[in-house]
Amino acid sequence: MALVNEHYLKLQKNYLFADIAKKVNAYKVANPKARVISLGIGDVTRPLVPAVIDAMHKAVDDMAHKETFHGYGPEQGYLWLREAIVKNDFLPRGIRLDPSEVFVNDGAKSDTGNIGELVRWDNSLGVTDPIYPVYIDSNVMCGRAGVLENGKWSNVTYMPCLETNDFVPQIPDHRVDMIYLCYPNNPTGTVITKEELKKWVNYALKNDTLILYDAAYEAYITEPHIPHSIYEIKGARKVAIEFHSYSKTAGFTGVRCGYTVIPKELTAVTIDGKERIALNTLWFRRQCTKFNGTSYISQRAAEAIYSPEGKEQTKAVIDYYMGNARLMYDALKKLGFRVYGGVNAPYLWVKTPDGVDSWKFFEQLLYGAQIVCTPGVGFGPSGEGFVRFTSFGEREDCKEAMQRLAKWMKA
Amino acid sequence: MALVNEHYLKLQKNYLFADIAKKVNAYKVANPKARVISLGIGDVTRPLVPAVIDAMHKAVDDMAHKETFHGYGPEQGYLWLREAIVKNDFLPRGIRLDPSEVFVNDGAKSDTGNIGELVRWDNSLGVTDPIYPVYIDSNVMCGRAGVLENGKWSNVTYMPCLETNDFVPQIPDHRVDMIYLCYPNNPTGTVITKEELKKWVNYALKNDTLILYDAAYEAYITEPHIPHSIYEIKGARKVAIEFHSYSKTAGFTGVRCGYTVIPKELTAVTIDGKERIALNTLWFRRQCTKFNGTSYISQRAAEAIYSPEGKEQTKAVIDYYMGNARLMYDALKKLGFRVYGGVNAPYLWVKTPDGVDSWKFFEQLLYGAQIVCTPGVGFGPSGEGFVRFTSFGEREDCKEAMQRLAKWMKA
Repeated sequence: MALVNEHYLKLQKNYLFADIAKKVNAYKVANPKARVISLGIGDVTRPLVPAVIDAMHKAVDDMAHKETFHGYGPEQGYLWLREAIVKNDFLPRGIRLDPSEVFVNDGAKSDTGNIGELVRWDNSLGVTDPIYPVYIDSNVMCGRAGVLENGKWSNVTYMPCLETNDFVPQIPDHRVDMIYLCYPNNPTGTVITKEELKKWVNYALKNDTLILYDAAYEAYITEPHIPHSIYEIKGARKVAIEFHSYSKTAGFTGVRCGYTVIPKELTAVTIDGKERIALNTLWFRRQCTKFNGTSYISQRAAEAIYSPEGKEQTKAVIDYYMGNARLMYDALKKLGFRVYGGVNAPYLWVKTPDGVDSWKFFEQLLYGAQIVCTPGVGFGPSGEGFVRFTSFGEREDCKEAMQRLAKWMKA
Repeated sequence: MALVNEHYLKLQKNYLFADIAKKVNAYKVANPKARVISLGIGDVTRPLVPAVIDAMHKAVDDMAHKETFHGYGPEQGYLWLREAIVKNDFLPRGIRLDPSEVFVNDGAKSDTGNIGELVRWDNSLGVTDPIYPVYIDSNVMCGRAGVLENGKWSNVTYMPCLETNDFVPQIPDHRVDMIYLCYPNNPTGTVITKEELKKWVNYALKNDTLILYDAAYEAYITEPHIPHSIYEIKGARKVAIEFHSYSKTAGFTGVRCGYTVIPKELTAVTIDGKERIALNTLWFRRQCTKFNGTSYISQRAAEAIYSPEGKEQTKAVIDYYMGNARLMYDALKKLGFRVYGGVNAPYLWVKTPDGVDSWKFFEQLLYGAQIVCTPGVGFGPSGEGFVRFTSFGEREDCKEAMQRLAKWMKA
């Protein structure tokens, strides 16, 4: 008799973005002529850059001839891509990685979702709040999150990021086994300084905590003193796994490629406390068993981002999106909103006016100005009273959305 | 203190194909001039067919323009592909599926590896022996396989497939919660008749067993009475999940696309026995949380397989490989080997001569004839005394391998 994994039944019924899509569709059905502008889900809209397109055409042609055909690649990703990553994303910041410490994947969501397999199901968790829902949900699925009590999971330490603490989470006063950090942050758009990040690494070193560091938005950092990688901090190689994604760096949300760094020094301990096990080895084994590498074409596409043209072209796209962010930031400020993020990240975290709750304001914006945002509370209890705007839209749409918003506020 | 998942430490140190690669490399280093012919790992060698190449170029072009750019797709796969699957792979066999019962993935390995998440870690397992190692290893990783005792896992019922039973596994005399079946079989190349498959479905219906049916090689079936899908059997929708892959159907080992079917009627029970939960719903939630869909380009490539040209061209490639299988089958028979498979599958299962063990014969072939095969014992205890030959090579290589083998046997 096959018994179901009971932890799955604890999940809240719907996924945030599915809920939003449903509400938006209901609006569209009732108002078929309305032009809805989406500043909601964090998907890109600019096409892939020419360097990437050229590389993909070439890769497709490789697949057409037996001399250049590529079948199964290494589960960990092709060495040429891992070498390009090490050389371009880390070496210029003084971080020396071996290519065997890099695992190419089909996007950060898979790896952030699956990485928890390497450690026991009963390790305790710490998360900043608000947070990307996958971090929590993937832990609910294996029982690690515990049970839901008054909107919080029993085995999770929540570290609120609020206006009152400048969105800097406080380090827990007790030992936590695993902590998720995401900087630049989704959803708040805020960043962490080297000094603050150092505190986390030191906490982890002292408490033998595993840090799961999501750097998916690092390419959006504009200020020079903000760290792009946790490995810029001494000692981080012993405690942190870092997730990168080309989804936002180069518009790869439909291409599916990213990578995870697991330094060789990083270990977790056996339950008897006697042995330390390298997670790099375990993840390699995991990937060889449950993954067969990312599409050859997607890997060639990723490689092209590191060519001189690729770098220049992808930077121009990021600048475009960050131009949107600036435009919206300024407009929202002018309208009297309290706005955070948007300087080193493609997300704006906006306080709702008059203490209106997140979903209420979401509906007001949808019905009043035909703008879709993401209700902050969908990212966790501390997101209540905020909404997230993304800057991944068209420039004209961002402008029009801000005009509509101004008009709606005056009405 | 992050505690490691202790089940990972029970895994045997190396993955079968990594072991083989190491031995082959050692031989090549010592014999740099030798031309080694690989009939070992099941990777394809023919390039992608023109219909697929054209579709991929077009898909790449779509990504180059904002009007046709594709970002995040549905986690479950694009509807146009799922509709093509339903219409082409199932409807002609009298199987009616709804597209929502199909989940497009990045290859069967990911889904066969991850599907176990949906059910409790302590369900008992049944496997045919020999078997594709991923089925077992993925269950070791979550503790479901139990502990290794005398080369067998304690929570696994092994169903030997031997010459003495015509490679037809015997149905267990006790209740098993989950059973893996793979037909056409990897590694033995044997198939199952409708009558035999019916017995499994009836066993599963009676015992509330979940069947995990791997149909990755169904495109290689040449005999008309052999079932291509377990859903050809009445009642199977209530008990079986079926895995399909384009890797072998259309040479997609480097493209990464396949699909999994989870009928809506399929359920697993809660531990108190009071409720039945649809696994389709749980898998959808799992994919939305831990997967972000397969590359748009790979999905367009898969769609092209179902065009009239795509069908014709992929069939020609399969015929080529099956021509290899026939050639090797005949040659091996002529040399006096006992040979199985190769008629409805791209694998030949060959009894070693004189009771030599699998690894010994593997080395004899490597050093004596510069041929790489896969030692049968690597697929499980009942594989001892066999090796697997694949027919995915070049025709000329297959011919030469058989000539070398003949020469070596005479020496």
